[in-house]
Amino acid sequence: MSVEDVCRSARRAARVLGALPRERKDAILGAIAEALERRAGEIVRENEEDVRLARANRLPDALIDRLLLDEDRIRDMVAAVRGVAALADPVGQVVDGWKLANGVDLRRVRVPLGVVAVIYEARPNVTVDAAALCLKTGNAVVLRGGSAAKHSNRILAEAVQGAVIASGLPKEAIAFLGSDRAELDELVVQWQSVDLLVPRGGAELRRYVLDHAKVPVVWAAGGNCHVYVDAAADLEKAARITLNAKVQRPGVCNAAETLLVHRDVASAFLPDVGAELHRKGVELYADKAAAQALGDIPSKRASRTHFETEFLDLRMAIRVVDSLDEALDHIATFGTGHSEAIVTEDATAARRFMREVDAACVYVNASTRFTDGGQFGLGAELGISTQKLHARGPIALEELTSVKYELWGDGQIRG
Amino acid sequence: MSVEDVCRSARRAARVLGALPRERKDAILGAIAEALERRAGEIVRENEEDVRLARANRLPDALIDRLLLDEDRIRDMVAAVRGVAALADPVGQVVDGWKLANGVDLRRVRVPLGVVAVIYEARPNVTVDAAALCLKTGNAVVLRGGSAAKHSNRILAEAVQGAVIASGLPKEAIAFLGSDRAELDELVVQWQSVDLLVPRGGAELRRYVLDHAKVPVVWAAGGNCHVYVDAAADLEKAARITLNAKVQRPGVCNAAETLLVHRDVASAFLPDVGAELHRKGVELYADKAAAQALGDIPSKRASRTHFETEFLDLRMAIRVVDSLDEALDHIATFGTGHSEAIVTEDATAARRFMREVDAACVYVNASTRFTDGGQFGLGAELGISTQKLHARGPIALEELTSVKYELWGDGQIRG
Repeated sequence: MSVEDVCRSARRAARVLGALPRERKDAILGAIAEALERRAGEIVRENEEDVRLARANRLPDALIDRLLLDEDRIRDMVAAVRGVAALADPVGQVVDGWKLANGVDLRRVRVPLGVVAVIYEARPNVTVDAAALCLKTGNAVVLRGGSAAKHSNRILAEAVQGAVIASGLPKEAIAFLGSDRAELDELVVQWQSVDLLVPRGGAELRRYVLDHAKVPVVWAAGGNCHVYVDAAADLEKAARITLNAKVQRPGVCNAAETLLVHRDVASAFLPDVGAELHRKGVELYADKAAAQALGDIPSKRASRTHFETEFLDLRMAIRVVDSLDEALDHIATFGTGHSEAIVTEDATAARRFMREVDAACVYVNASTRFTDGGQFGLGAELGISTQKLHARGPIALEELTSVKYELWGDGQIRG
Repeated sequence: MSVEDVCRSARRAARVLGALPRERKDAILGAIAEALERRAGEIVRENEEDVRLARANRLPDALIDRLLLDEDRIRDMVAAVRGVAALADPVGQVVDGWKLANGVDLRRVRVPLGVVAVIYEARPNVTVDAAALCLKTGNAVVLRGGSAAKHSNRILAEAVQGAVIASGLPKEAIAFLGSDRAELDELVVQWQSVDLLVPRGGAELRRYVLDHAKVPVVWAAGGNCHVYVDAAADLEKAARITLNAKVQRPGVCNAAETLLVHRDVASAFLPDVGAELHRKGVELYADKAAAQALGDIPSKRASRTHFETEFLDLRMAIRVVDSLDEALDHIATFGTGHSEAIVTEDATAARRFMREVDAACVYVNASTRFTDGGQFGLGAELGISTQKLHARGPIALEELTSVKYELWGDGQIRG
């Protein structure tokens, strides 16, 4: 079956899925969760094969960590599926509505998008998360995972699809493609049958999609996130937030990569927080003023490249700025529009930062690590969107829907 | 100045625009309206030159009609600008918000998109409408009109930009490109500075944008709209709606192109409505059963091509169907997802049509001609979107915004 045929079948399946009542969808999600639990042993074994090959191919440790599925992670995956079942169904929700002057009743109602394609790399749990989120929102989904996870994805796909077929749905409700390049090339141009493409991955995937895709895209993108410690910061809060944003889980997109510190508090703030970061194993890249303030805490000299880099590990760039304006300019230059935080007790500075920073999530006196569908109370998500069209922030259930205008009249015509 | 430079300057201007309070924006809109009124004579003269050239080049009458600006149409344009000023400002509106379990206050707030590019063809009023809508929503706009309207667009641009500059805004807040192809080629790939591209035009423009664009797109697309007269229709309402949807203004995207009639009412309905359509100058393309029901009312035989065509003039295809299902299948096959209407007194049929038709606007017992920002009470719009991502239906003020998550804490970190 060609990719074009798979996408067309998915479009037909989407008509069935879009009409399913919540009860049916939640029951299928329950069956998927049970299938994953029942086959946990097989899943671990197939995943071990991926991990073995990744080690043999000397893939980086961070990637191997993302690849790994153990009993705990499978339990988390199952819990995520049950969590999606427990969420309210957005399909059919009346967003707003009013009566036109001529008496026609207008309602704007949430409907599924139709067919969602997801391209992802090493994390096999995306296979299950994406399937669950799309099923809940009445969308058909076409999944295309990375080659590093192919054994894991194959067994997960089998488990998920088994539950879907047993429930009487067409198997193309959740379709899985292989991981070769030709299939990817074909997938990204199916504008007649794919309503949304979500690429989850790094700069290379982004470039590829930008160059080849003809379908509408929402990026689940990376974050070069900043914590700015203002002249009027409570330094105890600032230290707590900086440490949390950097080290609580450094490999994720909402972790902070650069610390900006106002000159007035640099010498009071940096020695203690620098020592604590150093103790936690964080390598520091400091500009001249920051290095001076750090004193004898080891740091390397920060270059433009460090400010541009999403480290995703225990490295952090530090820059001392002369003003809030300089911090805002730095963030406008190097930020990726993901999550940005200011620490300050100055209401005017907080308000300016909130307004002027152009990012999906802007924080006053809280850690950037909260940018997450679950933390926001939205449930599971397909990633964080840093674009402005359609979805900004967590790509959760609502972002996987569209709207339809329903108009009910009794013979009205336009004059 | 290259197109890339224009778009970059627009991005800088967008930072200024995004922070403007409503008062300032409405005052500039007022100045634009006055400039258009003051220069109405010049505008008419420049437009006459475009119309003269269009006639010399033997462009179709429908296009010349779209091109034409007379005193009345300038008055409408001015009224549209004042209408936009009178609308509520969506920027800063709190969409929703709640308190996280840890005490952080979350707000989802409307913000401008940033830079909006609009590509359009013959209608010079789009120059003014797009400028007004983008200014109101705090977006910078880059406008690229068609060559047929170049004299009109030049003078309109001068009037609009004069008012913008006099108000102290950077002139790239509303930027105008020339109409040559090289500029278009450059515009559609400015993904680093353009947040949204709205193409308004026919199939050729669509193909071009699909093949070349690297920026996010919302299509202001055409409509192949249907009226379905059900077995349980009130035939008086059905006749009224059919005539209105076809002839009240045939050259627009929400006009009906195909009439579907249930077999049970074909012979009772078609002779009268057919006669009336014929009297209004509508050329009919009927399938065999419809031709039979029409009796001696002149009609040509309908082919697949007629069912596929958005006529945009006084032609209509007619097909007799055996069931609601056949009508739904016809619409799924030939519809473009714009506006679809059923005429019926049967609540179950109405509900099925409403649910199963996949279109931006679905009508029960009302004319498709209502699909319009003004008619819906949303104010002016950039067109009707038939896509599902970001905007579906009228591309009005709200559709020209994005959202930002604002998070206010007092030191919260993630555990």
